[in-house]
Amino acid sequence: MIFGSDNMTGASQQVLDAILEANSGKVSSYGADPWTAEAEKMLADIFEHDLAVFFVATGTAANSLALSAFARPFDAILCHRHSHVMEDESTAPEFFSGGARLIAVEGGESKITAAALERTLDRLPADSVHSVRPAVLSVAQVSEHGLVYRPEEIAELAAVARSRGVSLHLDGARFANALVSVGCTPAELSWKCGVDVLCLGASKNGALAAEAVIFFDRERAADFALRRKRGGHLLSKGRFLGAQFTGWLRGGHWLDLARSANRSAARLSAGLRAFPEVRVVWPVEANEVFAIFPRSLDERLRAAGCYYYEWDSNALPEDQPVAADEMLARMVASFATTDQDIEQFLAIARSALAAAGS
Amino acid sequence: MIFGSDNMTGASQQVLDAILEANSGKVSSYGADPWTAEAEKMLADIFEHDLAVFFVATGTAANSLALSAFARPFDAILCHRHSHVMEDESTAPEFFSGGARLIAVEGGESKITAAALERTLDRLPADSVHSVRPAVLSVAQVSEHGLVYRPEEIAELAAVARSRGVSLHLDGARFANALVSVGCTPAELSWKCGVDVLCLGASKNGALAAEAVIFFDRERAADFALRRKRGGHLLSKGRFLGAQFTGWLRGGHWLDLARSANRSAARLSAGLRAFPEVRVVWPVEANEVFAIFPRSLDERLRAAGCYYYEWDSNALPEDQPVAADEMLARMVASFATTDQDIEQFLAIARSALAAAGS
Amino acid sequence: MIFGSDNMTGASQQVLDAILEANSGKVSSYGADPWTAEAEKMLADIFEHDLAVFFVATGTAANSLALSAFARPFDAILCHRHSHVMEDESTAPEFFSGGARLIAVEGGESKITAAALERTLDRLPADSVHSVRPAVLSVAQVSEHGLVYRPEEIAELAAVARSRGVSLHLDGARFANALVSVGCTPAELSWKCGVDVLCLGASKNGALAAEAVIFFDRERAADFALRRKRGGHLLSKGRFLGAQFTGWLRGGHWLDLARSANRSAARLSAGLRAFPEVRVVWPVEANEVFAIFPRSLDERLRAAGCYYYEWDSNALPEDQPVAADEMLARMVASFATTDQDIEQFLAIARSALAAAGS
Amino acid sequence: MIFGSDNMTGASQQVLDAILEANSGKVSSYGADPWTAEAEKMLADIFEHDLAVFFVATGTAANSLALSAFARPFDAILCHRHSHVMEDESTAPEFFSGGARLIAVEGGESKITAAALERTLDRLPADSVHSVRPAVLSVAQVSEHGLVYRPEEIAELAAVARSRGVSLHLDGARFANALVSVGCTPAELSWKCGVDVLCLGASKNGALAAEAVIFFDRERAADFALRRKRGGHLLSKGRFLGAQFTGWLRGGHWLDLARSANRSAARLSAGLRAFPEVRVVWPVEANEVFAIFPRSLDERLRAAGCYYYEWDSNALPEDQPVAADEMLARMVASFATTDQDIEQFLAIARSALAAAGS
Repeated sequence: MIFGSDNMTGASQQVLDAILEANSGKVSSYGADPWTAEAEKMLADIFEHDLAVFFVATGTAANSLALSAFARPFDAILCHRHSHVMEDESTAPEFFSGGARLIAVEGGESKITAAALERTLDRLPADSVHSVRPAVLSVAQVSEHGLVYRPEEIAELAAVARSRGVSLHLDGARFANALVSVGCTPAELSWKCGVDVLCLGASKNGALAAEAVIFFDRERAADFALRRKRGGHLLSKGRFLGAQFTGWLRGGHWLDLARSANRSAARLSAGLRAFPEVRVVWPVEANEVFAIFPRSLDERLRAAGCYYYEWDSNALPEDQPVAADEMLARMVASFATTDQDIEQFLAIARSALAAAGS
Repeated sequence: MIFGSDNMTGASQQVLDAILEANSGKVSSYGADPWTAEAEKMLADIFEHDLAVFFVATGTAANSLALSAFARPFDAILCHRHSHVMEDESTAPEFFSGGARLIAVEGGESKITAAALERTLDRLPADSVHSVRPAVLSVAQVSEHGLVYRPEEIAELAAVARSRGVSLHLDGARFANALVSVGCTPAELSWKCGVDVLCLGASKNGALAAEAVIFFDRERAADFALRRKRGGHLLSKGRFLGAQFTGWLRGGHWLDLARSANRSAARLSAGLRAFPEVRVVWPVEANEVFAIFPRSLDERLRAAGCYYYEWDSNALPEDQPVAADEMLARMVASFATTDQDIEQFLAIARSALAAAGS
Repeated sequence: MIFGSDNMTGASQQVLDAILEANSGKVSSYGADPWTAEAEKMLADIFEHDLAVFFVATGTAANSLALSAFARPFDAILCHRHSHVMEDESTAPEFFSGGARLIAVEGGESKITAAALERTLDRLPADSVHSVRPAVLSVAQVSEHGLVYRPEEIAELAAVARSRGVSLHLDGARFANALVSVGCTPAELSWKCGVDVLCLGASKNGALAAEAVIFFDRERAADFALRRKRGGHLLSKGRFLGAQFTGWLRGGHWLDLARSANRSAARLSAGLRAFPEVRVVWPVEANEVFAIFPRSLDERLRAAGCYYYEWDSNALPEDQPVAADEMLARMVASFATTDQDIEQFLAIARSALAAAGS
Repeated sequence: MIFGSDNMTGASQQVLDAILEANSGKVSSYGADPWTAEAEKMLADIFEHDLAVFFVATGTAANSLALSAFARPFDAILCHRHSHVMEDESTAPEFFSGGARLIAVEGGESKITAAALERTLDRLPADSVHSVRPAVLSVAQVSEHGLVYRPEEIAELAAVARSRGVSLHLDGARFANALVSVGCTPAELSWKCGVDVLCLGASKNGALAAEAVIFFDRERAADFALRRKRGGHLLSKGRFLGAQFTGWLRGGHWLDLARSANRSAARLSAGLRAFPEVRVVWPVEANEVFAIFPRSLDERLRAAGCYYYEWDSNALPEDQPVAADEMLARMVASFATTDQDIEQFLAIARSALAAAGS
């Protein structure tokens, strides 16, 4: 009954098998190996586009390196005020970009809207040597609150961005979850709606530690190999990253894993909605469930071994406040979440609420 | 009739005389000269405190270097959303700190309030390796909108800051203007109310190019000489900075200059308030006047050779909106502003408004 | 017959088994897992010392992060002119330290000597705000040319360093190879001879991607967790790094792997020494063999599928020049090198030389 | 009798007059003033070339900012091992470039030779993602030891550099001294012999604090205004820098000042050569004299109030060693050096040597 994060699982068997398979023999290091080449080719096929692909081991590295390809040290990076880039990656964006500034898109929405983006851009000081120039917008897919951007929403953001000379970065830590939720092709959810660079995360969805930074225009990737090396993110045994991706992508495995996680989240939220004392906050479109619990329920769940994060209630919409005796819980399902996990969790909640009500 | 900025003037005669006087003879370079020593001594006397003082030529250097002494590369710097540090110094704060993050204090107030500071600190993600730690608060004295922080207001901010382990930086580009406005001692407006480091600006108030970074605790200044040199801000002919300060401070000259500028601003705002078509926005407490003009007035003023900046109307309080045919003007008086400048400006405005009204 | 580098192999079976074992179940992410804890404990036992240990995935990250804990942005890092830190890690040391300077220890020796270190320190400009202060010496164990520093040699370097306020960093990418070569304890080859921070490399010796940064004084590690996160080097599924180390260390496995690699190198060099046309350059003390080959031999070896690097002949001692028709080859044995690999390589060389001689 | 450095003087009267003249009236700040425009125009005329010119207040800022326009954070900057850039500017080059590496050109020569440059480039590791790419060569004109590069020497360096994709930066802190020494035009000593960017120093030769960064190709200056602002090097009262340059350049004043300084150095060295106990080390081609003194002479000179720097004797050519009872002295003449200064200095030396000899 662990719903803390999708990074609390190990790897899927198919990914492990790929690692084991890649382990034999001596091959060139630093990414000049057959597994890396194969993974790159698979991605180009899947995204139906020529790509410049770079594998790294962490999402923070992927995002920060990708952003640094667009934001010069005197530029600004726009992102959601509650985004992972803003709240959970220390000052890595500043570090890798050489000091670009992070600016939050205004408004308390759960997703960045084109209107909010425009308003934020309008409110920035006029372009001059004294102020920062917005260079890139970072959008998290799945969003900070478990919502999914549809292709037309991304296209709208991209249009506003492009009209101001701003590029579009997709933090795709949960891109696969979004993809199966929308039900479109990877191309439709990336370059076709205006994404310039996608950080495609595998770590949260079945890999051990593997992320792909995917440029849809090779020119923007010109310095990237140097940036990755300078950041200490070029693995010597590069085959290990390539193999995780070949195992993960093969036969649509990545989508199967995401589908399973999304289904678990839907099941969990359906169960929670049945309790009048619990309020599920945002639509559950991918693998995350945000819900307001009575504190007493929270305590009993934890006492019974359930695990999830208490989330920052500042992120809540104004019309959904938490009361003093309530808390906001985030529960994340992963590919490894079982129906039994969910049923157990719900059963504990049920009896806890019954006990409290009696 | 130039009210663009107080940096559009030259230097006062007394400052120039000090430069000329310091020009003769051969002395040690890089600040080991008698003028620098004398300026340091005068400051210590004026502030009634042992000080570590460092002179530099620009306000951006002063602020960024000072902040870098408090914010490590993984820390955050808090400041007003419309502060000079945030809007007018490019990414210098990030650059000098090695990538610390700038975070705006929430709320649309003209000055940072203790409540807004507390709210902002409360909303930051919990202290962890993933998030940034607020390390220093930067307060602009005079504020972004021409208001003055009184000692007790600063003390309140310092108390909130200190309780969270946050230091206090004063961007004193117009410290002298604030000082004569409040009518207290330099000590009362700095270390006595909790300021850890003060950037005392002379450039806007009678010097050519001279700012002093003043630490009230020498230990915090341990690396500062190295930081200043590395940033290219250690002048070889250091006497030139020292002499500007001795000339500026001698006999209370700096306060006289500030008093004159403040008086001019008061006179200008009094004149403007007499026009029903004009709304002076914030109390004029120092040397800046913010007023809402009809666009037609603005055009006639400019046509007649008046000069001032159109200011970002987003900074306005919500209950003071600009109409579509209005604009927000910022007028700054300096020590060199004459009564004649003001009367001419007001006369042009008067006839412009009369013409429009007829 | 691949002797290109010890990073061209996969992982040892015992390391893989540890990864597989760690894969099951849901545990806390970011290093708060039982495998990481176990690995830390094993290291403390093995090094007979209280430690602050941080796991990362690459040697460049380990070295650069470790150096950044000792060198401020205005300091200098000393290292061998042909060291990996100097020649093979891009500008990662500058990046992570925020701009510290790399300075090569003078002299063409294969190992840094105390005399050369002293000479270099003597020749640096006097300590002042204008010049850089040497803060840390980086020593590669095994050295750039396959030689091993004995504890007393490191102690000598540490003594010189310490007397100038310089700390000692050991780039232990091949620490295990050095250890079994010297035949002393890990403690004797690290903190007991004055090492302040050791980057213990597992990647080249049986792991997939795992390095440990080991501080022998916790105080020096105060900011390290923040530095690692900011650099994007904190893996979400931290158990994966911990497990590699537990598998690698358990039962002395790491030493067995190193012993095997060293033995292979000794066997290879013995075989090469039997050819009068080949000159083995430096004593083979660990798992690397440097030899001067006739170009014709080089060509035939490569044509027959042998793989190794041509090395920079500038690194050669002055009394061992390469002729125009010769080249310098570096051959590295790994734990996965078999006797058969070596015999095949030698047989090809033998027949190549015979053909050339006939 | 102060020969410590040419930055121990004040400004020339003509420069001061220009500052006073520029002091009146209100003009646009940040370099949009008539004096800055005039100075830019004068430089373009003098250099007979379209230019992108940027004024700053210090030589360290000028050099570091200029180099950062050519060296990306993963590149290398080549310079003389005893250059100001290497020895006297802290880690400013690393700071402004975002972490590029400084590499000393090999060889103990007093000037960088084309052969030494080529040898250094040959010895660098092969271009790869692991190593640094040399991007720019910094040459000091006048050289570290008071020698002057002739146009054909610079052209030779530029040819080697260009053939490797390396740009050419001239640290012209004493460019005027070199110019009058060679007797050619500014164009002949800069863009005509292959210089890409020139830092033209006025501070050491009659200004208070003023340096011009001069790009001969505007495209290379694309980001420079942003870099300057971010570094805190954009002065608000920019007219002050512009005016120093107009005053300095007007009527060939800068060349007169340099000629005077050079003449003084020649006179001083001629006088010193007359003493058999003193050895002038390098040809005196500009305004610096390097000489080996008996320690006893040094002591008597200092006791009598003479001032100069003891220089690092490691810089001496191998065939000119200092004995244990000798020292290397650097004496710098400036525009303000008088014949009387020199005669007094020589008279003191003469009597000191006579006393010692008796």
